[in-house]
Amino acid sequence: MAAKRIYLNAFEMACVGHQAPGLWRHPDDRAWRYKDLSYWTDLARLLERGRFDAIFLADVLGVYDVYEGSPDAALREATQVPMLDPVPLVSAMAGVTERLGFGVTVSLTYEQPYALARRLSTLDHLTDGRVAWNVVTSYLESAARNLGFDTQRAHDDRYDVGDEFMDVCYQLWEYSWDDDAVVRDPERGLFTDPAKVRPIGHHGRYYDVPGLFLAEPSPQRTPVIFQAGASPRGRSFAARHGEAIFINAVDRAATRRLVDDIRARIAGEGRDPESVRIFILLTAIAAETDAQARAKEEEYRSYASLDGALALYGGWSGLDLSGHDPDTPLAYIDTDAARSALEIFTRADPTRTWTPREVARYLTIGGIGPVVAGSPATVADELEAWVDETGIDGFNLAYVVAPGTFADFVELVVPELQRRGRVPAGYGPGRTLRENLVGTPTPHVRDDHPAARHRDRRRALAGEAVPSRA
Amino acid sequence: MAAKRIYLNAFEMACVGHQAPGLWRHPDDRAWRYKDLSYWTDLARLLERGRFDAIFLADVLGVYDVYEGSPDAALREATQVPMLDPVPLVSAMAGVTERLGFGVTVSLTYEQPYALARRLSTLDHLTDGRVAWNVVTSYLESAARNLGFDTQRAHDDRYDVGDEFMDVCYQLWEYSWDDDAVVRDPERGLFTDPAKVRPIGHHGRYYDVPGLFLAEPSPQRTPVIFQAGASPRGRSFAARHGEAIFINAVDRAATRRLVDDIRARIAGEGRDPESVRIFILLTAIAAETDAQARAKEEEYRSYASLDGALALYGGWSGLDLSGHDPDTPLAYIDTDAARSALEIFTRADPTRTWTPREVARYLTIGGIGPVVAGSPATVADELEAWVDETGIDGFNLAYVVAPGTFADFVELVVPELQRRGRVPAGYGPGRTLRENLVGTPTPHVRDDHPAARHRDRRRALAGEAVPSRA
Repeated sequence: MAAKRIYLNAFEMACVGHQAPGLWRHPDDRAWRYKDLSYWTDLARLLERGRFDAIFLADVLGVYDVYEGSPDAALREATQVPMLDPVPLVSAMAGVTERLGFGVTVSLTYEQPYALARRLSTLDHLTDGRVAWNVVTSYLESAARNLGFDTQRAHDDRYDVGDEFMDVCYQLWEYSWDDDAVVRDPERGLFTDPAKVRPIGHHGRYYDVPGLFLAEPSPQRTPVIFQAGASPRGRSFAARHGEAIFINAVDRAATRRLVDDIRARIAGEGRDPESVRIFILLTAIAAETDAQARAKEEEYRSYASLDGALALYGGWSGLDLSGHDPDTPLAYIDTDAARSALEIFTRADPTRTWTPREVARYLTIGGIGPVVAGSPATVADELEAWVDETGIDGFNLAYVVAPGTFADFVELVVPELQRRGRVPAGYGPGRTLRENLVGTPTPHVRDDHPAARHRDRRRALAGEAVPSRA
Repeated sequence: MAAKRIYLNAFEMACVGHQAPGLWRHPDDRAWRYKDLSYWTDLARLLERGRFDAIFLADVLGVYDVYEGSPDAALREATQVPMLDPVPLVSAMAGVTERLGFGVTVSLTYEQPYALARRLSTLDHLTDGRVAWNVVTSYLESAARNLGFDTQRAHDDRYDVGDEFMDVCYQLWEYSWDDDAVVRDPERGLFTDPAKVRPIGHHGRYYDVPGLFLAEPSPQRTPVIFQAGASPRGRSFAARHGEAIFINAVDRAATRRLVDDIRARIAGEGRDPESVRIFILLTAIAAETDAQARAKEEEYRSYASLDGALALYGGWSGLDLSGHDPDTPLAYIDTDAARSALEIFTRADPTRTWTPREVARYLTIGGIGPVVAGSPATVADELEAWVDETGIDGFNLAYVVAPGTFADFVELVVPELQRRGRVPAGYGPGRTLRENLVGTPTPHVRDDHPAARHRDRRRALAGEAVPSRA
């Protein structure tokens, strides 16, 4: 059996401190150039040269103000603030690349599907089918308060809203316009044939969208759907919609169980569980030799910020650890939020208790994800072991210093992975992100994806044969 | 006295048929390539070579479905449908130009100020201060119905919401972050100094935005504000906020009166009326000789579409002319909407009655705006006469065929205007759009602009001197 392919995304965000709190201090870090166009176009060229599948752009619409009950630590440590909108970055990067994909995070919580569907179709047109939408439901109270909500919706409600939001988008993308609606026939005086465009007539619990879609079909129609739901309800949302799913991983045994759970949920949705690419966050620190890489990691760690890490942790978990002694174990914080927030760590090592300082140290490089430091062979060994032992498909690679961490990976690790047959030498014949990442024979969603139901409805109108469903 | 400078914007939209219904049939028209990135990057390069001040990107979020009570005519004639979102186009164009400005239309009706302010700041960062926001309150019922409203807000209410929306944005852009908030000082462990960033604490009638802004100050902070309100309430909104204002013009005498009215309103807001650039829509058909240009215009007109024009008119006016005999005068349609919709035409010639066919013929090339066809000297003469006789500052130049109309203008007319000292040979030293267009000594809003109030509040906090207001 051929070695299983490894998929690579660069994990980025239009901010300074993404997953490595404190590292902005490092003289090699150029992440503060996030607001310059050339930072992004140079990075996109680098990643395409390194045969990355996509750059994945995270986003949040609020500040991390749980720790110390204030945004001050986040500001001091540039912890995801200041931060820009990822959507406007894409077309410039598309203009300097041919094949790199773009995974863009947009929270559906603060959008209307009619407008967001058009924005994403625009990106898919401009990139010639290289766009993925990372669907998130926002988790920061600080965002909700500034965006017209008194507080966040209850967690599970957010996913109910999300299911309807996705369904509206799928109707706009897959049902409203036929493939051959745009005729551009001067003889008949017909640019678009109105008989091949239809209103979606959606009247749901949360959204009313009666009309037709404004955009003509883009290369992929539905952008590749990325998702990262972690809770049980979130996992089932991801299993329903995600074509790539990001999970938190600490150790391999727990990750194996999580991957199995997610693939079972995907199967439970009537989808082929092997058609979904599962990614974990991972940080690779590569150097010519293991010793050099370990030295580099230690040097990086000397820039770590406890405050920045706890600010990040506060935003993710809702838990303010500022009142706790940094060296006292956290197990006694006996609330639902605390248990859930600590779950990732106790899963990593159930026999151990975690203190605030240990949590912060853990998060300081690579957030909630493993860190691998070593020579090209060592890093490649580790990546292969993760993939082969856990059943994941690839990695969201975070940076310690940007773009240095990516440049090291491209120069050192990618050639090694290519030699081992894990990363293809070039991009395949299918030009869209979906063909590359999901392996579909066309740019469009698989028949077992929920968006395909609306494609079937469209095809049935035209009298076309529609695949039968199990 | 030196000849008054003439400002030039290219008037575009991410669609096929913008202001010339039917011209998609013309073999020279390439507007159907609007969904390809290279259409936009090539156009941006052309315009910068032609010393245009900006490309102005229109937008609507609905379809033109008033005519015949259906979107069919708009679809057949590609009348602003299919259409994409203009925001994602900008960064690619910015990547291939140095000085061209980008005026982007975003309706505030379907946005939250907290998110939109960040999106616009992102564009201002990525373009290095070359962005203008064309503020619109949406006018299409078809948009409202698909975006969470049962119907549109009442017209004047839309502007009340708009005033508060603008004020929230100004607070985020001008008040929340000090110029020197980002310190990036590894020694002090301070990326952003929290003492120099503050929540805006906005609790208004329509919006609650208590928090601090997510983006650090962009080169212009507040993007250049474009506005095009035409009604009395709309004009006073434009006079308050607009740094460039677009008006509909048919004849020069009426335009002179309108310009005087707008400048008086600007003065009434305590602003220097000459600091605001007033633009009219105009279509220039240029050729080597007058005869060639006239022949070109006639040839273009042979592609005109009555249906497409009446679809456009229906969307703008709310008036469905499909039930009316095309050759019967419209004066008898005695409703407020009809009177208001016809006002532009009766202003053009009060002694004449207009039939649907005449309205359509008028709109067919250049929408509601004059058409000038001639040699470079003739076109330049006409543009000079418009500027000198009406007090406007420049033109939103529409295309008949794209990009051909712009290419002709750049090749033929711009050199003539430059010879006459009306268009500068190159771009000035100030690199931002505001310095170029408004002529400010810095990239920031003038002291008499309403956004400056929040800058004053910020400066007062720092103990800086603040200009006194009349």
